[in-house]
This record gives sequence, structure tokens and C-alpha cells, in this order.
Amino acid sequence: MQKNHKQASTPAKQPLIIYGRHAVLAALANPRRQIDKLLCTKEAAAEIRQTGKISPQIVERREIDKLLLPDAVHQGFALFCGRLPSCTLDDILDMAASKEKCHVLILDQVTDPQNIGAIIRSAVAFNTLALILQDKNSPLESGAMDKAAAGMIEHLPVARVTNLSRAIEKLKDAGFWTVGMDGYAQTAIDQLNKSGKTAVIMGSEGKGMRRLVEESCDIAVRLPISPLTESLNVATAAAIALYEINKPQ
Amino acid sequence: MQKNHKQASTPAKQPLIIYGRHAVLAALANPRRQIDKLLCTKEAAAEIRQTGKISPQIVERREIDKLLLPDAVHQGFALFCGRLPSCTLDDILDMAASKEKCHVLILDQVTDPQNIGAIIRSAVAFNTLALILQDKNSPLESGAMDKAAAGMIEHLPVARVTNLSRAIEKLKDAGFWTVGMDGYAQTAIDQLNKSGKTAVIMGSEGKGMRRLVEESCDIAVRLPISPLTESLNVATAAAIALYEINKPQ
Repeated sequence: MQKNHKQASTPAKQPLIIYGRHAVLAALANPRRQIDKLLCTKEAAAEIRQTGKISPQIVERREIDKLLLPDAVHQGFALFCGRLPSCTLDDILDMAASKEKCHVLILDQVTDPQNIGAIIRSAVAFNTLALILQDKNSPLESGAMDKAAAGMIEHLPVARVTNLSRAIEKLKDAGFWTVGMDGYAQTAIDQLNKSGKTAVIMGSEGKGMRRLVEESCDIAVRLPISPLTESLNVATAAAIALYEINKPQ
Repeated sequence: MQKNHKQASTPAKQPLIIYGRHAVLAALANPRRQIDKLLCTKEAAAEIRQTGKISPQIVERREIDKLLLPDAVHQGFALFCGRLPSCTLDDILDMAASKEKCHVLILDQVTDPQNIGAIIRSAVAFNTLALILQDKNSPLESGAMDKAAAGMIEHLPVARVTNLSRAIEKLKDAGFWTVGMDGYAQTAIDQLNKSGKTAVIMGSEGKGMRRLVEESCDIAVRLPISPLTESLNVATAAAIALYEINKPQ
């Protein structure tokens, strides 16, 4: 994790290398993704040819190993490509305008790329409209993040904003009910009214949301967990929250 | 993941090294855990001394690095110790006998130690009585598994059985409603009756449950996910299933 983190914090001008079968095939299928170069083992290339979008360079597995961190499970696929462009908060509000019920997810201080990737996978599974991150403290799109997202990053608009409290206020003005996840909250998440528009806000595993962010929320709710457990993994907690919010009222 | 998997499939006679702050502190606090040797960095040792159970050997961080795989985030803690003894299915039935409502989790062909560890963490959070694994195809307790479980493995009885279908029949005889998770099932999990005793059965991410195991279940249920998503991560799916089953009726 620490090492993946290092990779994620490389400057934006460094190339993005997406690896792993699901992540690479999904990136190739996304017309919004700028594709530069694809390296594949012979076996992996057989799957790529069928897509016809780009001719892979056939290389030995160890050539791909050398490009990535030792724990990267690349399955013979490495794609050099551009990062997906972020959207703006206004784009998200436009998308939400025509909907009666929808939800977005806001992450405050979640920094581990694998957790963010896993959260993206769950967000798409539970019909999350968009993800909102604080620009300064959130890692850029990286190979480790995309691998954990199993290709689902191609389907989720992501906005990077300067100030989360201000974004929360703007969402409120647009009719969103803003719900902060807090292990010490009195209300359990399944007691929430799930109609209308909801923004779910989650902090980091260790520290939770920052105080100002939490104070911006309409309500704080908790996941009901055993007193034996200090906390859930942040990606697990996000998945359960989105599953619950996505339920029909 | 692959490399951690290798570590997990080492023979049982090889020593178990638990690493990471939460996992090591929880192991030290468990009277059922046989402790052999504790290596700590100077900073980590300060926390251990307070427990008073064992005197750590103070070592440099790189000494611990050398013991573990390159991606192991050990935080300065490495504990040589025995694996926790498994319980039997009969032990689990005895524990369940006095309860009106409880649930157990059965994993079929889930082989990734980190996923199993993450599932153990969620299982304890949602009051799962015990975990049942097929002995032959499930990795032994390992450092990677315990790290992902964040110490919660100390709180969850685990039974390793020879034949899962037979275990499911025995659970049925003891009054358990047996519920298989299957992405193609007609019934959504939240439509289940949550009273009484439930056994949740989950297969691997790629292949799901084996046919015979699925046929042993009373009912198959699915998590309602977007058609964009092929599947959820198995640990995420397990967490949501256990969260849902743990709800009061």
C-alpha cells in the first residue's frame, strides 16, 4: 500500500500505466480515454486483437514486471494512456437536475489509491452519479487505483474541488440532503429517508471527516457495527453506505 | 496479491509471522494465541511494553522488511506465533443452540488471503458467529490475512471442513436457513426474512459457488448491482450480505 501510494503521488506529467485485464480492456473501450501505447504478453494480446482499437506490442512478462511495482498483478496487460479528465461540480449538478432520486459520494482525506479504486468499483455498482474529491489531498488517477476499480473508473465522473465545505453548501442549494458518515453518530444509516437527492460524505479510516466538513452536513449517520470492531475498512464502509442509499425508498 | 498468496500457501509447519500494529496488538491480547517471539522497531516497542506480555527484541526496520514480502506494511511490528486452532462444525452448532437469531458465513473457493482477512474484519463487525471454510482449498492463516483482518481474526471462530455440502445439510438440520449468494438469483437479499438462524454461502469472485454447493442451499439471493458492473469484489459483497443479515428483523 505504501509503495502504491508513492506511485500515485508522482507528478501528473508522469505517464499513467493502467495494468490488469479488466482495467485495460475497459480503458480501451472508453472513447474518452487517450491511448498512447499498449504492451501485452502473447496470451494477453489475443484478447486485445479482438477489440481492434490498437495494435499491442508483444513483450515478455518480465518487461511489464519492470515497469510496475513488485506487487502489481498485471496479467500481461500494460496500457500507457492519459488520465481521464475531471468534471466540475456544476457538471454534476447539471446531471442531477433532471433526476428525482440520485446520490453522489464525497471523500474527505481518503488518500490510499487502492481504497479509492475499490470505492469507485462499488460506486458504479450502486448507481452513484459522481465522486467528489478534494483536489489537494487526493491522489491522481494511478495504475493501482484503476486496478482496484476493475475498469469501473471509465464509468464514474470524478470532480476534484478546492473546498469540500463549499461543495457541500452548493449541493445543499441544489436540493441534496448531505449525510456524513460518522462512527459515533446517533442515527443508523438504514433509518434515513432514501428518496430525493443525497450526498454521502466519508472521511478517512483513522480520522474521519475534518470538523468543518462534518459541520457542513445536514445529518451524521453511522453503520451499526460490533463494539469489538474499531472501524470498518473505508472502502467497505463506503460500499455499504452506497448500497443502502441506492435502495428504492 | 499473487505473492501474498504464495506466502499463504506455505506449509503449516512454517512459522506464522503476524505484522502490522492492529494485528500484532490484537494477537498479543488473545490468551489463546501461542506467542514465540516479537520483533519491533524502537518506536513500535514503546506501545508493546505497555501490554507487558512479552519483551520485544528491538531491531531496525530493515530487519523486519527482510522477513516479509516487499509490499507488507508492517509498521515496525513482527510477531512469530502459532496459528489459531480451528473449531469444529459441532462447536459452531453448540454456540448457535442457545441463540434465537444468529448467522454464520461459508466461503466456497475463496482463495485470496487478503480477501479472506477483509471478510473476517467485516464478519466480526456484523456479529457473525463463525466462519466455515473448505479445508482443502482455503489458505491457512497467514500474515497477509491477519493484516487485512486488522486484528479481528482473534475474535472469530473458524471451522475448516472437508465437505461444504455436508456442512450445509448439517446446518439445515440444526435449523439454519441456508442462503447462497448468486449474481443471477431472482430474489434480492433485502427481501429475505432476517429472523432465526442463517448461513450465508459465498463463492469466489470469478466462478461463484460450485454447483453442488449452490444446490445444497435453501435459496439463492443476489445483491442488486448496476448492469455496468460484472461483479463486486468478494470481500465487499460479503460485507454487504453480512450487514444486511445482521439487521434486526
